[in-house]
Amino acid sequence: MTLEKLSESLCHGGSQQVWRHQSSATGTPMTFAVFRPEHRTTEKLPVLWWLSGLTCTHENAMIKCEYKAACAEHGIVFICPDTSPRGEDVPDDEAYDFGKGAGFYVNATQEPWARNFQMRTYIEDELPQVVAGAFDVDMDRQGISGHSMGGHGALTVSLRNPGRFRSTSAFAPIVSPLNCPWGDKALTGYLGDNRDTWRQYDSVALIEDGARLPEVLIDQGRADEWLEPQLKTHLFADACRRAGMEPTIRMQEGYDHSYFFVSTFIADHVAWHAERLKA
Amino acid sequence: MTLEKLSESLCHGGSQQVWRHQSSATGTPMTFAVFRPEHRTTEKLPVLWWLSGLTCTHENAMIKCEYKAACAEHGIVFICPDTSPRGEDVPDDEAYDFGKGAGFYVNATQEPWARNFQMRTYIEDELPQVVAGAFDVDMDRQGISGHSMGGHGALTVSLRNPGRFRSTSAFAPIVSPLNCPWGDKALTGYLGDNRDTWRQYDSVALIEDGARLPEVLIDQGRADEWLEPQLKTHLFADACRRAGMEPTIRMQEGYDHSYFFVSTFIADHVAWHAERLKA
Repeated sequence: MTLEKLSESLCHGGSQQVWRHQSSATGTPMTFAVFRPEHRTTEKLPVLWWLSGLTCTHENAMIKCEYKAACAEHGIVFICPDTSPRGEDVPDDEAYDFGKGAGFYVNATQEPWARNFQMRTYIEDELPQVVAGAFDVDMDRQGISGHSMGGHGALTVSLRNPGRFRSTSAFAPIVSPLNCPWGDKALTGYLGDNRDTWRQYDSVALIEDGARLPEVLIDQGRADEWLEPQLKTHLFADACRRAGMEPTIRMQEGYDHSYFFVSTFIADHVAWHAERLKA
Repeated sequence: MTLEKLSESLCHGGSQQVWRHQSSATGTPMTFAVFRPEHRTTEKLPVLWWLSGLTCTHENAMIKCEYKAACAEHGIVFICPDTSPRGEDVPDDEAYDFGKGAGFYVNATQEPWARNFQMRTYIEDELPQVVAGAFDVDMDRQGISGHSMGGHGALTVSLRNPGRFRSTSAFAPIVSPLNCPWGDKALTGYLGDNRDTWRQYDSVALIEDGARLPEVLIDQGRADEWLEPQLKTHLFADACRRAGMEPTIRMQEGYDHSYFFVSTFIADHVAWHAERLKA
């Protein structure tokens, strides 16, 4: 496996890097960003995965999310994968919410998507192996977070892999693709009409089907235009209550869906993850 | 004068806004970003001007610079103007370092640039009037900073307007357009071959010609690829020494020219400005 460094810049005392590698899961080159705090070379650092939202590449969070100072302070490696396969040979859709930039962290089963859109395998299996092999990381201390479609990704990846992540958080997550237009469109396209197959990609359904997380931190802006039509935080809160889970859901007055919201609270989240990753 | 709000988002407890207005200086609509910390409506806040570098619009610093938390903490309004006039009727050059995105904060005298490229008047006269009229700002407490071409802008605007700014800083500034290829190309194009007319736009020449600043803070990355061929920080240091000025010039080991560098030290600069603006 060849891993190619595309760029690196010193930032907040650590190194913000961009890497590319050939993915066997997607059959394409995949690019990801990684922030590596300064550390002793004998030291293995905890890892915080960041899954991004619709339209994003590896770059959006890297330049907008303001995680670097906090990750430098707490000594946490922060990884931003891309949100879909890329390239001229990869099928696409002209809409912003399907195809490239909108992989929804699923393994597609429908044509023409099945060949490349294997983002679940990429995020759950392949990229962790790449990261573990290339960087000074302690894979026994992983956390996961994300924004919007990436919040959906963080919750569902963590719910499906009990014990892998010591900490799980999300910003403005799509909590139930089964119950919103974004999810309906994307999962119909990638997975087909049998909605039973969608449940593994729906945090509410996963909890209904028995998955549990010991704790979850969610920030959600009350002025988020997508809160009512798409995100529906209350569905997650309800499912947790019925399951006896007690997530921390903070409804943030006045905040919208943008990275201006995420960047406001990311240092809080990094500190929250750090407490659990470094305990 | 009509001022139109294009967007606003709550961020770090303040409001990150984008505004557009018709500029009489440039003859075009001009767009700027402003971060307005939460404050009592009876309170007028100090202002920190941020002049951006080559290729930037009002947006680059707004999303990359990480100034918002610090400005919210210190109660400082942070303004990011555009770097040139824009629009289909505005002349341009295909190069990144001349024409749109590269106004160099001068009043052009050469055709076809003279009609629109009046960025000195825009930044020194027009935009301050717009800002003073529209926002809760205390124009007796202004600071100025900027990056690269915008560092050149900050230094020269402040040197030409003694007493207007209580604080002046810069990141990786072009200190002497008279002595670097970027400056040579741009000022020849905008001002013509008589290099005497360039001196008002050259921080080193302004100091040689008698301008003074009580203090200046400069951060410059040692790994900046433009340090030797274009930025030439030592020319500014030498001019200051000959003039009896004592700037604080911090050569930052390992840092490059990007916003990863700027974002690392911007909170330092905001705090430094705040000390002077709130004294």
